[in-house]
Amino acid sequence: MTEDSQNKKDLAHARTKTSFDVTNMTNFLYNGPSNVEHRRYIIDLIAREPIFNKDDWAWLNHTDAVKRGIAMSARLAEIMLENDLNHLDFATVVEAIDDPLPILLHNGAFIPVIDAQGTDEQIEKWVVPAQKYQIIGCYAQTELGHGSNLSNLETTATFIKETDEWEINSTTFTAAKWWIGGLGTICTHAVVQAKLIIDGKDYGAHVFVVPIRSLEDHKPFPGIEVGDIGPKAYGGFNKMDNGFARFNKYRIPRENMLMRFSKVSRDGVFTKPPHDKLSYGSMVLLRSVLIRQMALYLSRATTISTRYLTVRRQFNNPTSRNDAELNPGLETQVINYPMVQNRLFPMIAQAYALYAAGSVMMNMYINLMTSLSSGKVDALAEVHATSSALKSYCTTIGATGAEECRKLLGGHGYSYFTGLAHMFAEIVPSNTYEGDNYVLTQQMARYLLKELKRARSDPDKVTPFSKYLLLTLDGERFSRSSCSVIRPEDWLKPEIQIAALEHRCARLAMELYDAVEASHGNKKTWSDHNIECYRVSHAHAQYVMVLWFLQAIEEALDPEADEDCRAKPETAKVLMKLSHLHALHTIQTNLADFVEDGYFSPAQCQSLRAQVKVLVASLADDAVGLVDAFYHPDYLLASALGASDGDAYKRLWDKAQSEPLNRQEVCDGYKEYIRPMLKKHGDIKL
Amino acid sequence: MTEDSQNKKDLAHARTKTSFDVTNMTNFLYNGPSNVEHRRYIIDLIAREPIFNKDDWAWLNHTDAVKRGIAMSARLAEIMLENDLNHLDFATVVEAIDDPLPILLHNGAFIPVIDAQGTDEQIEKWVVPAQKYQIIGCYAQTELGHGSNLSNLETTATFIKETDEWEINSTTFTAAKWWIGGLGTICTHAVVQAKLIIDGKDYGAHVFVVPIRSLEDHKPFPGIEVGDIGPKAYGGFNKMDNGFARFNKYRIPRENMLMRFSKVSRDGVFTKPPHDKLSYGSMVLLRSVLIRQMALYLSRATTISTRYLTVRRQFNNPTSRNDAELNPGLETQVINYPMVQNRLFPMIAQAYALYAAGSVMMNMYINLMTSLSSGKVDALAEVHATSSALKSYCTTIGATGAEECRKLLGGHGYSYFTGLAHMFAEIVPSNTYEGDNYVLTQQMARYLLKELKRARSDPDKVTPFSKYLLLTLDGERFSRSSCSVIRPEDWLKPEIQIAALEHRCARLAMELYDAVEASHGNKKTWSDHNIECYRVSHAHAQYVMVLWFLQAIEEALDPEADEDCRAKPETAKVLMKLSHLHALHTIQTNLADFVEDGYFSPAQCQSLRAQVKVLVASLADDAVGLVDAFYHPDYLLASALGASDGDAYKRLWDKAQSEPLNRQEVCDGYKEYIRPMLKKHGDIKL
Repeated sequence: MTEDSQNKKDLAHARTKTSFDVTNMTNFLYNGPSNVEHRRYIIDLIAREPIFNKDDWAWLNHTDAVKRGIAMSARLAEIMLENDLNHLDFATVVEAIDDPLPILLHNGAFIPVIDAQGTDEQIEKWVVPAQKYQIIGCYAQTELGHGSNLSNLETTATFIKETDEWEINSTTFTAAKWWIGGLGTICTHAVVQAKLIIDGKDYGAHVFVVPIRSLEDHKPFPGIEVGDIGPKAYGGFNKMDNGFARFNKYRIPRENMLMRFSKVSRDGVFTKPPHDKLSYGSMVLLRSVLIRQMALYLSRATTISTRYLTVRRQFNNPTSRNDAELNPGLETQVINYPMVQNRLFPMIAQAYALYAAGSVMMNMYINLMTSLSSGKVDALAEVHATSSALKSYCTTIGATGAEECRKLLGGHGYSYFTGLAHMFAEIVPSNTYEGDNYVLTQQMARYLLKELKRARSDPDKVTPFSKYLLLTLDGERFSRSSCSVIRPEDWLKPEIQIAALEHRCARLAMELYDAVEASHGNKKTWSDHNIECYRVSHAHAQYVMVLWFLQAIEEALDPEADEDCRAKPETAKVLMKLSHLHALHTIQTNLADFVEDGYFSPAQCQSLRAQVKVLVASLADDAVGLVDAFYHPDYLLASALGASDGDAYKRLWDKAQSEPLNRQEVCDGYKEYIRPMLKKHGDIKL
Repeated sequence: MTEDSQNKKDLAHARTKTSFDVTNMTNFLYNGPSNVEHRRYIIDLIAREPIFNKDDWAWLNHTDAVKRGIAMSARLAEIMLENDLNHLDFATVVEAIDDPLPILLHNGAFIPVIDAQGTDEQIEKWVVPAQKYQIIGCYAQTELGHGSNLSNLETTATFIKETDEWEINSTTFTAAKWWIGGLGTICTHAVVQAKLIIDGKDYGAHVFVVPIRSLEDHKPFPGIEVGDIGPKAYGGFNKMDNGFARFNKYRIPRENMLMRFSKVSRDGVFTKPPHDKLSYGSMVLLRSVLIRQMALYLSRATTISTRYLTVRRQFNNPTSRNDAELNPGLETQVINYPMVQNRLFPMIAQAYALYAAGSVMMNMYINLMTSLSSGKVDALAEVHATSSALKSYCTTIGATGAEECRKLLGGHGYSYFTGLAHMFAEIVPSNTYEGDNYVLTQQMARYLLKELKRARSDPDKVTPFSKYLLLTLDGERFSRSSCSVIRPEDWLKPEIQIAALEHRCARLAMELYDAVEASHGNKKTWSDHNIECYRVSHAHAQYVMVLWFLQAIEEALDPEADEDCRAKPETAKVLMKLSHLHALHTIQTNLADFVEDGYFSPAQCQSLRAQVKVLVASLADDAVGLVDAFYHPDYLLASALGASDGDAYKRLWDKAQSEPLNRQEVCDGYKEYIRPMLKKHGDIKL
């Protein structure tokens, strides 16, 4: 078993080459040592509990997995109360458990929605017992026929004046609530989105608290048909009881409508809310959380790949970084192949950029809510559009990144035990929920069109992140503008990177604007421009990510900053490399956008590609340190190939030994199927 | 349930709009009605057997799935014999069953390898009983530490002269055979790749027939430690018993080495084979088969998406193709959104191009084998490089295409019941096996470099598909050359498409050549050029695919062709649209390659994008007909959303009802976990 210990030696040796202080980097990522410690403390709270052990997950089918999920939910409820954990801790608990549980939307949506939209009495009635898990709730919006398309929901809540009740009804086959996490088995209550109808008049979708199962025996109430919708793609969300429900003229009291904003009086008079902007807040929050989650996911995925590819050796090929002289007789470490580095290292840079983006976006959300609560709505449009653009882009690169990290592992990447397949299965629905990643990009596009109009009439009022639109005001000059790179090193100037990204966004926005203007004459509709909406929205998201990453590095260097969080010079140096790589790799991946209008010259394209390769190679010694800095414990990684000690083959072997099929010498099915097949044409001796 | 029947109506109505004869198109795809009928006959042989029913697959964990796989294997063996099916039928059987079984490599590798490399006596001894399933074999090459890297395998076969035996030994921890399909539970024999050692001398990897389990009681023989390696990513290959084996100085007779080519005599004298080119044949075959499989997969994936998106209606948005006038009050069919069409239709075109590529590649293989058997090796290099380039490119677009089709479905795409998650899980390992898709591209790159050298010295000898390299001979002229498109319609000239694809390949090959030449002076190694190898190899594959699709259409129009297979004019017309879309979309997706050296002008880029949109829109009426033409029965699609009648919501509902969790009114775990949680802080009434 010498090769075995070679694995460990290889990873340990790689760590000695790190050019910076890993702890300092970790503090940069998590904003200081107290946050780092607290995160680890919360993860350990989970990791030490037997019910949260992940070792047998690979073998649970959906039916068994949901039962496990229920057991985990119950223990999670206790842990939350025992340790008095808040909603930020809950996010870390969810991260640690790493598989959505039936109770997730109780804390994640049921309570927050009532908190936000319920009156004080309603909060007292439902949130207080919900916080003690005396009732369990879910959030029921999506239907078989409609998802985020609120205005076409087919569930109705009709006011019955005689009894002062709402009659909840699934008016059609496709009105059945569908995909509702927690509804399949665990919940006692649901917050239901339904069209409010009074005297035949439709007042649009509103929110109602609907008892689903009896608090006495957990049986569904008469008038509700409820169940689990079955397994999901790739074995994802396996422990989650995504459910369906059909309501057959089911009655609830009038007071079960959440009435902080809209209200309906005893005599059926509907009162509109003062303004309807507040609901945007929760969308921005969910999208901001998703960006943060993508940072955590992609950092875990790159951790697993970087470690395994450091210990995996394959072929005796010479590379520029061959260690054959140091280790005669050994094959080349896979991570030393430039092809591998050029696939992997840009994703490490992306993970760092995502951390920065998640944190800036969350601050924007907090500032927005402060403004909104004091009646200021100015920032709403920009924050909402930005969160939409980033949600679409970040969850896209999160999912593709996890899968790319898995493929990088080579043959063993197809084992369940990498931990990466589970991760991809968990990430990828985020490309669709909270706004389909294609549809959602229309938000940023519409916003930019408005800003561009504003730029032409009132240039001083353009919002900060759309300032680049001003570039287009002098059309003549804009169309002649070109990238100023002369020598390859010029690519390492942030202002040149930003200028290129701004130019591209401005051009795409301008072209979209012109096309939309022209469509009044040519029968085209908004839908005909949606490809261009997608392009400009992703371009904007990429621009913002580069900008924010640079900003985060700058803040970490601020001499005024808390010493614990301040970046040391070597930390800053490698962060700048990551920022360059992130920016230039993003540009290279979308190169056509920069060259098709002549902004980049052919020579610049060549030097850009060369510069990306140089940057990638320059990070080789730091790759392991950079992923170690994410500080993900082995429990969280749950990966035979990516564990911190590098003992990949040994762990893969051990995991295989745990396969239940291996508990018997001769497999199940031998007597029934194999033996009759072998003996059908007579015994043979060989 | 009126919406339900609207689903069916929508799909039926879409079919009325088809511009061509669907049966004629089906005959084009499968090369005539007798092939079409035979394929359907074979699929029906499987579909009617209860053991091949797919309804409960979603709930089988790996342990149960392997047992099912064993049962299916045994019945499959009977069906093969009962119906006297050949190896081509076996491929269709595998397609129909749609999940690799433990017995797959028995027919797919064990028998073919002995057939190819065994002596007549060895074939008599093992192949004859294997064909009657009296022994079951597998093919054991990959190890824990090495996959396709044959020369570094660590399993040894040492000749023991005294007893006239081989001693098979796993010399290190990482020498354990790993990933071997059939080894985990079912096989009695393995063909084992091991390094042949005589008197301490290593003669490289050779092939040995190794008894694994007793024919009497199926127990593994002493000296062999064998088992299943556990579950795979995304629940893929769930019924396959991919296994491991460690050999502890395990003895087999000398005659168990396959000796058609290499031989070892009784006294230990090793004789080399006459030439070692023959082994390339089986690699080319496997890769050709994979291309064909990708055609079948992507055509199934696009069938599911096209049908579901035709019946799914969402939002009341106007589109250029709105049917609101025809169907007042209904929402827009999702397939009418240009964004959706621009994602989906290019994949339909790709599926058609893949059918053509699979068929040309298979013919190239057959011609190659004819040549090789008469001693001609001239064509080998080109065929081998082409199959490598196509394998890498086609399996890449196969996997990404299946996932893209799944995401196109929106929220319901994350249900297991789409059939697409299962498909992706099956396809995606092909990106790694039979040559990792990145590593493999070095084959085509090396080949092109040799051809480019030949072009400079002996231009008449350049092989057919590399003729474009001659463009570079006049470097001055080449660097000035540019695309001749003036009006948007010019993009629809095949010669312009081909010229662009050829120019790109030639340029990338030339740049690679120059960089490799320069690297003698700058310490760079071959590995440093592997990114460029990948680029040029994929570029070449795309070029060949466009060429072959055009060629297939031309042949189908040949007045000399069998009338049954000949394309009718309307069929040819829509095929040409698909060919244009395939070519132009491929160019657009890789636009930077065409513009970064100035070959395309900015105006051409704009008109290309516009032309792709026009082509896409022009296929809208034919989308359903085009996927119907693939003629995939519902059994094969195994999709609630993609069934031929369009009744998507009804089927999704019915599938959910089959979830075992829904068999009881109150879920498992209520008494144990939920009730104690709800009651912990006292009873409440709400």
